[in-house]
Amino acid sequence: MSEVYAVRRTRLRERCNASGSTAALVSRPANVRYLAGAAPENAVLLLGRTEDVLVCPEPPDDRTPHSRPDEALRLHLMSGIGGDPAVEAAALATAQDVDALAVEEHHLTVTRHRAIGEAAPRLRLTGVAGAVEQLRVVKDEEEISCLRIGAEIADQALGELLESILVGRTERHLALELERRLVDHGADGPAFPPPWPPAPRRPPGHRPTDRRVEEGDFLSVCLGATYRGYRCEIGRTFVIGTAPADWQIELYDLVFSAQRAGRESLAPGAACRDVDRAARQVLDSAGYAEALPVLTGHGVGLEIDEDPQLTPAAMGKLDACVPVTVEPGVHLPGRGGVRIDDTLVVRPEADGGPELLTITTKELLAL
Amino acid sequence: MSEVYAVRRTRLRERCNASGSTAALVSRPANVRYLAGAAPENAVLLLGRTEDVLVCPEPPDDRTPHSRPDEALRLHLMSGIGGDPAVEAAALATAQDVDALAVEEHHLTVTRHRAIGEAAPRLRLTGVAGAVEQLRVVKDEEEISCLRIGAEIADQALGELLESILVGRTERHLALELERRLVDHGADGPAFPPPWPPAPRRPPGHRPTDRRVEEGDFLSVCLGATYRGYRCEIGRTFVIGTAPADWQIELYDLVFSAQRAGRESLAPGAACRDVDRAARQVLDSAGYAEALPVLTGHGVGLEIDEDPQLTPAAMGKLDACVPVTVEPGVHLPGRGGVRIDDTLVVRPEADGGPELLTITTKELLAL
Repeated sequence: MSEVYAVRRTRLRERCNASGSTAALVSRPANVRYLAGAAPENAVLLLGRTEDVLVCPEPPDDRTPHSRPDEALRLHLMSGIGGDPAVEAAALATAQDVDALAVEEHHLTVTRHRAIGEAAPRLRLTGVAGAVEQLRVVKDEEEISCLRIGAEIADQALGELLESILVGRTERHLALELERRLVDHGADGPAFPPPWPPAPRRPPGHRPTDRRVEEGDFLSVCLGATYRGYRCEIGRTFVIGTAPADWQIELYDLVFSAQRAGRESLAPGAACRDVDRAARQVLDSAGYAEALPVLTGHGVGLEIDEDPQLTPAAMGKLDACVPVTVEPGVHLPGRGGVRIDDTLVVRPEADGGPELLTITTKELLAL
Repeated sequence: MSEVYAVRRTRLRERCNASGSTAALVSRPANVRYLAGAAPENAVLLLGRTEDVLVCPEPPDDRTPHSRPDEALRLHLMSGIGGDPAVEAAALATAQDVDALAVEEHHLTVTRHRAIGEAAPRLRLTGVAGAVEQLRVVKDEEEISCLRIGAEIADQALGELLESILVGRTERHLALELERRLVDHGADGPAFPPPWPPAPRRPPGHRPTDRRVEEGDFLSVCLGATYRGYRCEIGRTFVIGTAPADWQIELYDLVFSAQRAGRESLAPGAACRDVDRAARQVLDSAGYAEALPVLTGHGVGLEIDEDPQLTPAAMGKLDACVPVTVEPGVHLPGRGGVRIDDTLVVRPEADGGPELLTITTKELLAL
């Protein structure tokens, strides 16, 4: 595995060199993990001029292979207590005769940035905002395999929940129950904390509630597993009670059509905004323009919300091996709503088209 | 309640004015909540020259009284999608003829700070780092009452766990079980996510594990409830099986003495470092200097880790009505460890001395 991380670091180094920096300081935890193989708490990674150094406040947890940092990195343990590893890394950069250090300006606070500048006044600080995130968009098969296992775990947890009695329980309780089942099945933990979805993802007017589930309710459940750091999500909507009402069947079918349109438009080279439009226009033309969330899908990986964003204003195109969610939803204030959410991997048609990772049925179940 | 928030905003405004800023932009969620009564997702608070404005991406959740922002604030809903409320607040400040705006440099990233500067080039941006945090240190009785209820909830959840069977379960499972019980008893949620304690709080060498609990183990459990935004914590150590070994009793008694020494030294006017030393020297003199964590306690409130910090290098003194934890611990690699953690409120002796909020027994129980 070590070569994977070395290759990633080389790619970042090339980008930094191209923009005139001889070294880079990576502080955002998901980016540290991507480049170093593990992100010990509060650790930062220095891509130096002469060597790469992982600066850690304490010895990394090495009890499992996937919590062990890449052995090709030099490990630097902080000498003092309460210091900032980013400041210590800047001092190490100076010692390596670095003149321009690229830092993650979208992650460092103004205060930390200033402390780095004061501790290493000879360093010129430049920006590398978003560079690692861009490298992370296209996944390798090892990463996709982690997402696939995470999706299996989420499917299992959801399947078990559906076999239990739901009436009388709150959304919050169901979320905790799901978390426990995810861990039971081998997840590192949930992929995101409840309540979910957060604004601005959630449809206007909808919020997770403490209300108990009742007969006749539309119940939307959204969960995800983290497996070896990789996060996926799945969302399904059910009717509680014996038979769905006509308006519930109609609304469900509509959201299902929108979600299918989004899924079917996933292809290498497809514009992100076109995928969004495919899903959105089904709901728009049925008169639900006002009830739609800001996005109809997004990338997933080491974080639950990554690029690409599937929105009307998105600029980029999809590539093969990019995992995304497709998750249109409609919420009718006072009546409930429908949301259907899958994680898929963009694949060329020759490989069978988009790979669905979350395989729980999308039939409208009455529970 | 509205006056409480107005008074807090006035105190902050006075500090900003004294340092030459006519307005302040508060972005850190706990600080927004402290000054506005609620912190809608991604909202920021502008303490303006002519009026105070809460800038929100979507309408605040007003279903419960304690999620409703102070009605004395003007509510400004973001016009567009995906914009930064801090940038929009800076534009509002300009419209109020503000010349110098104090921002939270310890919370804003370099990228956001730059976007504010570019969107409002006539504004001079100054710093207000830590000012709201300082106001938050001394709590009023309403705040302490929330902490007290949270502590009761944590005591209840822990009490129930102790009545259940622990052998064969992992620390991670026990943590999830505790979360569920906290919510059952009325908590907003857990006060902190597992694993806990995080570095650098935890004793050197100790990490939460996935190992199953076995007979003879020392089991340390640390949990906390959030109630109306306020977070407390409690930690206890138990022996699994019929009777503790001699070395376990000895180590437990030692940590208990250290924790009691810390608790008993809590008083208005006591130096934070003296409280730390009171607890630490008991363990030091028994030869455990190397096995001690960086701090032996810390403030709690809207965040689980606030000022004051009880460390050897801490500078300040305690005031009355400051809630703190006292939580010394020793971990012996390969054998396990002991940690005893309470949340208390500093009170003058005339009022009975420190008020213990977490009242679960500190006897060494064999479960």
